[in-house]
Amino acid sequence: MRTPEPQPEWGPARSRAVQWWDPSRTAAQAAGRSGLEFMQALAEGKIPPPPIAMLFGMWPTRVERGLAQFECVPDESAYNPIGVVHGGLVCTLADSVAGCAVHTTLDAGIGYTSIDITVNYLRPVTVDSGTLVAVGRVTKPGRRVALAAAEIHDGAGRLVATASSNCLVFPL
Amino acid sequence: MRTPEPQPEWGPARSRAVQWWDPSRTAAQAAGRSGLEFMQALAEGKIPPPPIAMLFGMWPTRVERGLAQFECVPDESAYNPIGVVHGGLVCTLADSVAGCAVHTTLDAGIGYTSIDITVNYLRPVTVDSGTLVAVGRVTKPGRRVALAAAEIHDGAGRLVATASSNCLVFPL
Amino acid sequence: MRTPEPQPEWGPARSRAVQWWDPSRTAAQAAGRSGLEFMQALAEGKIPPPPIAMLFGMWPTRVERGLAQFECVPDESAYNPIGVVHGGLVCTLADSVAGCAVHTTLDAGIGYTSIDITVNYLRPVTVDSGTLVAVGRVTKPGRRVALAAAEIHDGAGRLVATASSNCLVFPL
Amino acid sequence: MRTPEPQPEWGPARSRAVQWWDPSRTAAQAAGRSGLEFMQALAEGKIPPPPIAMLFGMWPTRVERGLAQFECVPDESAYNPIGVVHGGLVCTLADSVAGCAVHTTLDAGIGYTSIDITVNYLRPVTVDSGTLVAVGRVTKPGRRVALAAAEIHDGAGRLVATASSNCLVFPL
Repeated sequence: MRTPEPQPEWGPARSRAVQWWDPSRTAAQAAGRSGLEFMQALAEGKIPPPPIAMLFGMWPTRVERGLAQFECVPDESAYNPIGVVHGGLVCTLADSVAGCAVHTTLDAGIGYTSIDITVNYLRPVTVDSGTLVAVGRVTKPGRRVALAAAEIHDGAGRLVATASSNCLVFPL
Repeated sequence: MRTPEPQPEWGPARSRAVQWWDPSRTAAQAAGRSGLEFMQALAEGKIPPPPIAMLFGMWPTRVERGLAQFECVPDESAYNPIGVVHGGLVCTLADSVAGCAVHTTLDAGIGYTSIDITVNYLRPVTVDSGTLVAVGRVTKPGRRVALAAAEIHDGAGRLVATASSNCLVFPL
Repeated sequence: MRTPEPQPEWGPARSRAVQWWDPSRTAAQAAGRSGLEFMQALAEGKIPPPPIAMLFGMWPTRVERGLAQFECVPDESAYNPIGVVHGGLVCTLADSVAGCAVHTTLDAGIGYTSIDITVNYLRPVTVDSGTLVAVGRVTKPGRRVALAAAEIHDGAGRLVATASSNCLVFPL
Repeated sequence: MRTPEPQPEWGPARSRAVQWWDPSRTAAQAAGRSGLEFMQALAEGKIPPPPIAMLFGMWPTRVERGLAQFECVPDESAYNPIGVVHGGLVCTLADSVAGCAVHTTLDAGIGYTSIDITVNYLRPVTVDSGTLVAVGRVTKPGRRVALAAAEIHDGAGRLVATASSNCLVFPL
């Protein structure tokens, strides 16, 4: 990355250390497990969380067949140039719970990849939004394409975004 | 964030330090500037980059009226549980260049916020994808709603994603 | 329209007569009525149905604040070149109930126009699908932008499509 | 369809006759033809146009590998309750050219179905919009999923809508 030259008037730099584990170890744990078993192992902390989860501070809190719930407490490191949390964090949460919800419906040996996602932004998110709760639900499972919907609420229970995502499903 | 209990079999933790500056200083620089002037000041490093840019390692490389281009070199810290860069990074890039492209068309005293974004994923992104180049272009400017489209290519020039995003435009 | 030259091997032409009333009379009835009053008058047959409703054979069956339900019995005249009902009929139904749901939340003197729509197709529709039931619900009302979601079920109660649509709201 | 009881104040009814041919004959012509051959035969009037084309008055004017162009002259029969052409006609055109563009890339024995479509509405369409020209282009062909984009201009050359659509591709 091109590093900007900090200027005195920018004030002191702020920082956080992001820690993660070898993501190939996480992905390898999917072998031989159904999607639900894999997601449950992640939610129970038996498998290293994927790096993106550590980067954005998000983690699974509920996993069932056809449903995945994540929580996230956004901090200032996700702010955009206009002074609120970047929509990309909202997209990341929505994409995560939608994709993981689809994953919970897949047998061992079946994989998926996201075809697309549409995210509707309803309210700005800030560091005062509290804990975001994102829920993904499979609208329609499928052997070739599965559709999932996501909703994200803030700590006060207000809907901040909705999303839908189509996933391609295929034998690994 | 709930911190997982690392297990011995996860191997050594990896880490990076993320650094940024007070985002309210960045946002405050928008006052009195047209969107194009603001984006150019960001691209020239005269204004502190927004935290999200430091988190994902992305920065503006070209800014014109109706166009914004960002580059990004994704690293392992953006990986998802299935072993590739999380779609959320792609969404974040697409949302950034689409929103910033709209911003370049706005006079001083006019703000915007994203209404929605649709992202089509065309190829997986990995740490071997090289430098991602994301270009956002305003499809239709507007006094109330503006539409922008985004395309992201990888380092080999292959299209990895397309997107469209509607933004609400309003007097500040 | 460019009319094709019918060939003998096409077999006998089929036809239906489509009838409607001056749409400017329908639109004029919106003046002085809240959106809910306008939609209720349409549902009660006090106002001429819009031409598109007659073209596709669809009509409102339930209207409440924040909700609009339409029914439609697709016939062969909406078939596409691959031998099923064209997705455009599904889009038209979804766009109608989403937009009308938003309309029911608007006071007299306030108008709306659709910004966009995303439609997910889940099952093919044919002349054997029975009566389609489309329900639009306002996800989030707003003074500037409102979001609505739509679901369409076939006569057997199976979900055939979901959609979301953002509408711009403005004083007339 | 439930027929409304016309009221005297609605004024005289207007009507048009819609004519079409057995759509199963059209679909049957796809057998043994590549998608491009099928689309070219349609554009040349060798195959009966699908009913939806007659219903909305639209027809193919250009077909190449990866591209499909349709024209349409909307008439009053496609009007919505707020006094302009219903967005569903715009969706139908966009869905048609996107799907047909994908079709032109498919070998004989390969079929497709639309997974979804996102349509951005940029300008209202009326009977004064002139001939709409819709162009669909394949953004990315694929053996399992193909993405196409569509643009629709009015008779004055103004962009009235953009769209993107993912299609599932499969052996018949």
